[in-house]
Amino acid sequence: MRKMIPQRKINFHAGPATLPESVLLQYARAVTELDDTGISLLELPHRGSEFISIVDECNELIRELCDLDNSFEVMWIQGGGRLQFGMVPMNFLGLDDTAAFADTGHWAAEAMEYAAHYGKTDNIASSRSTNYNCLPALPAVDANYKYLHITTNNTIYGTQWHHVPDVNLPLIADMSSDILGCARNYRRFDLFYAATQKNLGTPGLALVVVRRSMLEKTVRSLPPMFSYAAHAAQNSILQTANVSAQYATLLMLRWIKEMGIEHIINTNKEKARILYHALDNSNLFIPHVTQTAHRSTMNVCFTAKHPETEQAFLKLCDDNNIIGIKGHRSVGGFRVSLYNAVPLMHVEKLVQLMNEFEKDI
Amino acid sequence: MRKMIPQRKINFHAGPATLPESVLLQYARAVTELDDTGISLLELPHRGSEFISIVDECNELIRELCDLDNSFEVMWIQGGGRLQFGMVPMNFLGLDDTAAFADTGHWAAEAMEYAAHYGKTDNIASSRSTNYNCLPALPAVDANYKYLHITTNNTIYGTQWHHVPDVNLPLIADMSSDILGCARNYRRFDLFYAATQKNLGTPGLALVVVRRSMLEKTVRSLPPMFSYAAHAAQNSILQTANVSAQYATLLMLRWIKEMGIEHIINTNKEKARILYHALDNSNLFIPHVTQTAHRSTMNVCFTAKHPETEQAFLKLCDDNNIIGIKGHRSVGGFRVSLYNAVPLMHVEKLVQLMNEFEKDI
Repeated sequence: MRKMIPQRKINFHAGPATLPESVLLQYARAVTELDDTGISLLELPHRGSEFISIVDECNELIRELCDLDNSFEVMWIQGGGRLQFGMVPMNFLGLDDTAAFADTGHWAAEAMEYAAHYGKTDNIASSRSTNYNCLPALPAVDANYKYLHITTNNTIYGTQWHHVPDVNLPLIADMSSDILGCARNYRRFDLFYAATQKNLGTPGLALVVVRRSMLEKTVRSLPPMFSYAAHAAQNSILQTANVSAQYATLLMLRWIKEMGIEHIINTNKEKARILYHALDNSNLFIPHVTQTAHRSTMNVCFTAKHPETEQAFLKLCDDNNIIGIKGHRSVGGFRVSLYNAVPLMHVEKLVQLMNEFEKDI
Repeated sequence: MRKMIPQRKINFHAGPATLPESVLLQYARAVTELDDTGISLLELPHRGSEFISIVDECNELIRELCDLDNSFEVMWIQGGGRLQFGMVPMNFLGLDDTAAFADTGHWAAEAMEYAAHYGKTDNIASSRSTNYNCLPALPAVDANYKYLHITTNNTIYGTQWHHVPDVNLPLIADMSSDILGCARNYRRFDLFYAATQKNLGTPGLALVVVRRSMLEKTVRSLPPMFSYAAHAAQNSILQTANVSAQYATLLMLRWIKEMGIEHIINTNKEKARILYHALDNSNLFIPHVTQTAHRSTMNVCFTAKHPETEQAFLKLCDDNNIIGIKGHRSVGGFRVSLYNAVPLMHVEKLVQLMNEFEKDI
């Protein structure tokens, strides 16, 4: 079934991220005609049986791969992570309530800023003073907060919560950049969301998983588009769904299941291990995150000793068909994203190039 | 460049709607590899030069095809029409302000319900009592309203405003189902929006055009995701954009320009003319909208004299590879959507089948 796409680059972009070739080829075929429907995926009615099956299978695969029980509701909503930054406080933070946030970087801070429009926020732990090169120590969290919000993986800085904080209040997490990419007890969360363009498919959609009992804690009367309870009641088809993005997600989830979630997680660990090993043994490249327990297996950020070296290495990568490794301006240097669809051999190739480059200069 | 997709159905769905084959084939190719980028459209970075060019070209084509001057801002926002139902009042309707609505059916009413969460609403004209089979007469509209909201085309009932209401206050319109499908002076509106899944591409995106001076009338401090001013300042890339839907829209806009907007509009008129002609001369089929001045050229709704006849005609269509003509439950019977990408010959084929069916029973 699979055939190579010629001239395909080695792609370490932070998202939209690289996808498996088999997913691209199945999707391309569906654009011409979806199964035997006589129409294109791009024309598929969102209320027809074919699309309902796509959503149902996505839901089942999320339940299976995240090991969720029936106390959770699985939803898919347009608008990416930022709509979720707004929906979480709209639904669960009243004007006089306070939510706690762990400030682990740009996205965590932005989620907090959105929430401040709907209620009060407390920044209870921050690693800002060290440019977010580690996770802050979490204090004991007062159970009077309406919820604690964390960002499980911080793409810009390359930190990741490998342990779920032990708290006695609703725990809400943005998992956009590490969902299904690491071992995690998803049942410890009361709500988690993830934009789909990293580990789950293409842009234009977000996964939202919410404990059903949370829905009863909704604090506002909201228009249906902004209400989790309304989306849940409509099985993710409250509005004309982002049909093609949902299909891309289905293909990704099937691919993850086919590869085996354990295999994916172990491969991600191995990809990160060889890259951090190279950085820790380099005299040229400097990892942004030094505390190994805080290091992300999804995004590895590093700089080089001199800016001109960085330009030269970027050029060498470009000459070798490697793209997407320029770091975010907040950290500079390089960011290598190792999402689920990045093959181990692409990381090996990059490390080889780093070693050669270091020898040559 | 074009080749036929075998077994392709004749598709009159109300949206997601049929797309031109040339658009589908170009999109499918881009899923394998976008131009010579070495990556798939589905992996394209939203902040790279390729995507910025896609957005810029979409903006230029909208300006050209809608004949807009520089006083308008063109934007693309995820979340479809329903996010716009929310964003319009969030931005322009304060808690003590009142907006006027013309109630021409389900979508117009839903836009009003969303607005009622953010301010006051007046339903100044409604055709509800006749199941929306005509447009209501608009009274003189008090200029103290913050704005008047209309739905230019009402998909469920098949009515359409062919004249722009002459009012002395900001005029806002949902044009989801007739944007670029009919002759219209777009400069008469202060804001208009259109979900892309009918005349502009695939689901997952909405076009928003706003007069720049409106942005200064924003009544609330909003999180960026909900602020038109913030989206405008970021050239539609405030968040990870729905890259593939934007590309589908670009291909659709290029196709409309290539066909010629005049030609498209005239063909739409002709498609509607022959279908209404058949209905007006039928002893079996009954058009929902009898006032010709209110009839939509985009969605033609009708019933048959007996329910069993309707089932038989649906089956005949199905046997002839014609899909998507079942009417909305609010009207029953049939709804034939004649969006830009529906070829005239498909309508001729349907009319021929209607005539044969009527003769045979």
